Amino acid sequence: MHIHESRVRARYAETDQMGVVYYANYFVWMEVARVEYCKSVGFSYQTMELEDGVLLAVVDANCRYLFPARFDQEIVIATSLAAAHPRMATFHYEMCLADGGALVACGETKHVFCGRDMKPVRLPSKYFAAFGISNQAATNHD
Amino acid sequence: MHIHESRVRARYAETDQMGVVYYANYFVWMEVARVEYCKSVGFSYQTMELEDGVLLAVVDANCRYLFPARFDQEIVIATSLAAAHPRMATFHYEMCLADGGALVACGETKHVFCGRDMKPVRLPSKYFAAFGISNQAATNHD
Amino acid sequence: MHIHESRVRARYAETDQMGVVYYANYFVWMEVARVEYCKSVGFSYQTMELEDGVLLAVVDANCRYLFPARFDQEIVIATSLAAAHPRMATFHYEMCLADGGALVACGETKHVFCGRDMKPVRLPSKYFAAFGISNQAATNHD
Amino acid sequence: MHIHESRVRARYAETDQMGVVYYANYFVWMEVARVEYCKSVGFSYQTMELEDGVLLAVVDANCRYLFPARFDQEIVIATSLAAAHPRMATFHYEMCLADGGALVACGETKHVFCGRDMKPVRLPSKYFAAFGISNQAATNHD
Repeated sequence: MHIHESRVRARYAETDQMGVVYYANYFVWMEVARVEYCKSVGFSYQTMELEDGVLLAVVDANCRYLFPARFDQEIVIATSLAAAHPRMATFHYEMCLADGGALVACGETKHVFCGRDMKPVRLPSKYFAAFGISNQAATNHD
Repeated sequence: MHIHESRVRARYAETDQMGVVYYANYFVWMEVARVEYCKSVGFSYQTMELEDGVLLAVVDANCRYLFPARFDQEIVIATSLAAAHPRMATFHYEMCLADGGALVACGETKHVFCGRDMKPVRLPSKYFAAFGISNQAATNHD
Repeated sequence: MHIHESRVRARYAETDQMGVVYYANYFVWMEVARVEYCKSVGFSYQTMELEDGVLLAVVDANCRYLFPARFDQEIVIATSLAAAHPRMATFHYEMCLADGGALVACGETKHVFCGRDMKPVRLPSKYFAAFGISNQAATNHD
Repeated sequence: MHIHESRVRARYAETDQMGVVYYANYFVWMEVARVEYCKSVGFSYQTMELEDGVLLAVVDANCRYLFPARFDQEIVIATSLAAAHPRMATFHYEMCLADGGALVACGETKHVFCGRDMKPVRLPSKYFAAFGISNQAATNHD
């Protein structure tokens, strides 16, 4: 399984009056990590959106919070593809403090491929390899 | 079961280049709804933070996205307390378009009560009623 | 001069670890107020974007911060059109605490009308009235 | 004059339905750049907040938008200290596309030093050097 590591640093904007990173912002970090993961396997969001009109629409997202991240801490996000077929892809994320390695949060996001009209579409086969989808598996989800 | 309805209108800031509300922002809407829910049962975040030094720290959050909300649409959020005891509370949210009623998303957030140091604490008993916690039930979670 | 009053309530998400509303969020509030102002003079962002392909792109924004807004405070935003001609519009905002009336912040945003390609365009004349642009004035800016 | 260069990459979360980075987010980028600038001259926000209880509260912020930044573009932010004395500091920012160098935006933020109660204070003299404040100049602003 391919794992890609991304790094983000907690911004002041991302904290709240509790003095920790506001919970919704972990989902933004997941996006940053997901975009980098995609690049690391050789495909870009941008290109798929512009050239193929295919978007990755989130259908499910969850996060478990274990340890509060604070301003200016660097977070390492390990991203992997938990599941993928031509209609859907699920990413898994583990977020740790760069300093010390404490697990801050983990989560998953599940996506369907869709067109500009937000209607589900099949992932163009040229992207199968990037998502680790075999042609065999692809057939099973037609 | 008490259900509180809140209303938010999708802000331009909350959209992304897909032309729909960015997925992390639904968690911000849950917070808006949760704060209003709490007020509707007679207790305020603000007061609990300032007077008792007790915070509601999120430990788990999830959202299922069914229909994309778009700029300027009004969303009705029905919030209820799915579970509560002196250490923990879980809120449930259903978000519908005000116009037409289509279910946009639903989700849950699970919280532990904690002090300023982010260590878990027991909810002060004066707040039991607001969270629908009976003294009997409270004893079982000591 | 037409002044439209909008109301926002400071969200937990909008605070930072200083315990006050994070400075960039006042610009989000200006957007909320601007959208409502536009509606109040009978025209919608949404419609202009979808039907005419005309967008309001910000070219300048500033904010003066006088008094920190805090979580859950309600803010009244008085919005007016400081200047407008067929290429450009400037909005002015005064933000006060609903409770007590203290001036929290004031600011301006300057916009050019542009197409989907972000190139400047002339405001369609059907919108002149909403922006208080006379045909006379319009001619001077051709 | 010391200039510090920071780099940010436009996040999907930061775009809006116009397909460009939402205008308020440039102020978040300024914060990221400001924090890095401060580190580059040997002082940390974090430390000043925790050890000295001194915060940098924004009193004025402005941004001029010249060219729209888009998703996934890398932006180079050149930050400098435009003015500083023991009560106040002004930062200047120039944001360019890393690829090609087009000037995207420029802006300034003006800050007062204040305590946890948000009342103005004098910058502790141990930080004078970092802000390029001479003892002579400091005296003039007592």
